[in-house]
Amino acid sequence: MENSIAQQAAEQLEMIRRGVVDIIPEDELKDKLYASIENNKPLRIKLGLDPTAPDIHLGHTVVLNKLRQFQDLGHEVHLIIGDFTARIGDPSGKSETRKQLSTEEIAVNARTYQEQIFKVLDKDKTIIRYNSEWLQNMNLVDVLNLAGKYTVARMLERDDFSKRYKEGMPIGIHEFFYPLMQGFDSVVLQADVEMGGTDQTFNLLVGRNLQREYDQEPQIALTMPILEGTDGIQKMSKSLGNYIGVNEDPHEIFGKTMSITDDLICRYFELVTRVPMPEIEEMKVQMEKGSLNPRDAKIKLAKEIITIFYNEEEADKAEERFKLIFTKHDIPDDIPEVQTQEREVWLPKFLSEQGMVQSTSEGRRMLQQDGVKVNGQKHAEENLVLENDMVIQVGKRKFLKIIQND
Amino acid sequence: MENSIAQQAAEQLEMIRRGVVDIIPEDELKDKLYASIENNKPLRIKLGLDPTAPDIHLGHTVVLNKLRQFQDLGHEVHLIIGDFTARIGDPSGKSETRKQLSTEEIAVNARTYQEQIFKVLDKDKTIIRYNSEWLQNMNLVDVLNLAGKYTVARMLERDDFSKRYKEGMPIGIHEFFYPLMQGFDSVVLQADVEMGGTDQTFNLLVGRNLQREYDQEPQIALTMPILEGTDGIQKMSKSLGNYIGVNEDPHEIFGKTMSITDDLICRYFELVTRVPMPEIEEMKVQMEKGSLNPRDAKIKLAKEIITIFYNEEEADKAEERFKLIFTKHDIPDDIPEVQTQEREVWLPKFLSEQGMVQSTSEGRRMLQQDGVKVNGQKHAEENLVLENDMVIQVGKRKFLKIIQND
Repeated sequence: MENSIAQQAAEQLEMIRRGVVDIIPEDELKDKLYASIENNKPLRIKLGLDPTAPDIHLGHTVVLNKLRQFQDLGHEVHLIIGDFTARIGDPSGKSETRKQLSTEEIAVNARTYQEQIFKVLDKDKTIIRYNSEWLQNMNLVDVLNLAGKYTVARMLERDDFSKRYKEGMPIGIHEFFYPLMQGFDSVVLQADVEMGGTDQTFNLLVGRNLQREYDQEPQIALTMPILEGTDGIQKMSKSLGNYIGVNEDPHEIFGKTMSITDDLICRYFELVTRVPMPEIEEMKVQMEKGSLNPRDAKIKLAKEIITIFYNEEEADKAEERFKLIFTKHDIPDDIPEVQTQEREVWLPKFLSEQGMVQSTSEGRRMLQQDGVKVNGQKHAEENLVLENDMVIQVGKRKFLKIIQND
Repeated sequence: MENSIAQQAAEQLEMIRRGVVDIIPEDELKDKLYASIENNKPLRIKLGLDPTAPDIHLGHTVVLNKLRQFQDLGHEVHLIIGDFTARIGDPSGKSETRKQLSTEEIAVNARTYQEQIFKVLDKDKTIIRYNSEWLQNMNLVDVLNLAGKYTVARMLERDDFSKRYKEGMPIGIHEFFYPLMQGFDSVVLQADVEMGGTDQTFNLLVGRNLQREYDQEPQIALTMPILEGTDGIQKMSKSLGNYIGVNEDPHEIFGKTMSITDDLICRYFELVTRVPMPEIEEMKVQMEKGSLNPRDAKIKLAKEIITIFYNEEEADKAEERFKLIFTKHDIPDDIPEVQTQEREVWLPKFLSEQGMVQSTSEGRRMLQQDGVKVNGQKHAEENLVLENDMVIQVGKRKFLKIIQND
């Protein structure tokens, strides 16, 4: 029996480790998992949410997906909606990002949030609380007690504070309270684990330290990576336009997923789907060997994502629709145009002149390798009779539209 | 009329300037005094009191005396008893000095304080408030609003914080709130002037800055020097034993005042009495010329102090009693002794041999100038018949006791 609990705890830990950046500290998490199994008592997994930006995208689901894993392992998820902080805004009036929200706005945002969140999380194993519940009743004595648990120097160790302090940029004293309040949420909740992106590590550790000060077993800080956007370069963000939104139409999600760079495929599988790791690793090997077309892996990925956010049927429909469009209209709207009066051209030279290939010989090779399409159809011949509005495509991304004014 | 107000304001300023270290900024104080006279509206002069140390001594009265001057000029004194801070103590538990006090202890201390304070202040022009009145009702929103008005960097400029931060000594975040709360008291009070010792300059300026943030006319920071104790070296303090307590018996005050070093006389006159400055300056000139005996100046000082703390009658009684003791027993207890079998000596030589004068000629001069006493009585003759236990005194401080073992 003893051995069996240890084994179960190890198995759980193995699953939890998937995709994480840090578990601070891992051995304590193992102990907590062991105790949880032994006493049949779920762990309390905490995630703090800022109700200012209710549009959830795939980047956010990295953390949500991990929470879902915890739920599937029998643990409880506690979502703390930071309505208190959102309601007070930035008293120094200096930060645009900390905009004050009305109670109504917060309520609307929180509802929108929940609609999206439960596409990933199990509603029955999720407890939602608003931190105004305990924070708005704090008085100055409570606040001083809280503030007395942390030193100025330790707070200034936080990367952004330390940077701003060194550069002589102002840090309002109230800003020290955002980590303190987040940490106090953990105390109130008696959280076992707090999750966040890697940019949250400091704040998660404040919660850990505060719990210790309040004589509680300190929480584990579990951080997830920041997901790259569909461009594969910058972090996924709505403002950068490189995001896949949870609330987007299935065919939109399908198309966006198909547009990601190949090196992101396995990372997305690991971080945002429930496909088992061995399967993902097998796909990786297959793609490296060339026996799995990345395009097919992406189709599978897109369907997995749509299945999570919608269902399998929608995933199938999106695939069908995508394939239909792909073969028929796989041409973007805004492609470069060229005005020409020529009627018939020798493609290797024409493509080279238009900058679509480096040289005539590359042009000839592309034709031989089925790399050229005319109006969406493969075109292997070296000669082509031009027509107005004709679209020539080289490879996956280079398009040219022929304009012939008579 | 215009001119007359300006003149009155200038006169008030001249009186207020007496003994102060700094008026920050002086031109604003002048404007406030002008407006006060013009609108017949007294200025609000604030002093914060810590109810932890209720024994008031002469050092504390330096500030009280300045407040009394303001009262005599028609202004209002607002004493803020910091019962809130005293009641919460130090949440980090690290500071011994910030001991938590019970409500009862605070009430007792506040009463003791008032009994002593009104020996200097005019009770009718004094308003006493406890800062718990507004601080205990602050909630976290109010606290964050307050904290948001000040930056970490500016707070770390305070001497003790800056020193501790540089030396890696911990500063609890709650400690930032002591200056903030004191400053907030000024906001609530709409103080025109806040007084304090020079060690309070930073805190007084926090109040000034906060008032500006709360769209009030900022207060003037007015600092008084720290009074030296009766030893003339260290600051007056109960623990150093160099203090004159407000609650001490008149004859005790008289004696302690007589024991101060001569160079303190005018400083004490300026800082703790109501004797007009021209008179003090005249005394100084007289003492320098030798036409005023410092002893007589000290007698006047002692009587002035007793008159403030008690009344003129007690001052006269204390003087009489002191003079009685002075003439009869003006001999310290622990004076050097010399064993001698000589019966009659030639004093100029004997005094020189005993190191009480530099030479026989100095000894002769001292005798001629009435500088020698035997058993407290003037002795001008050069010959002296020695007796057991006889005390010979040269000048004010040199004593010798004769021991004759038969």
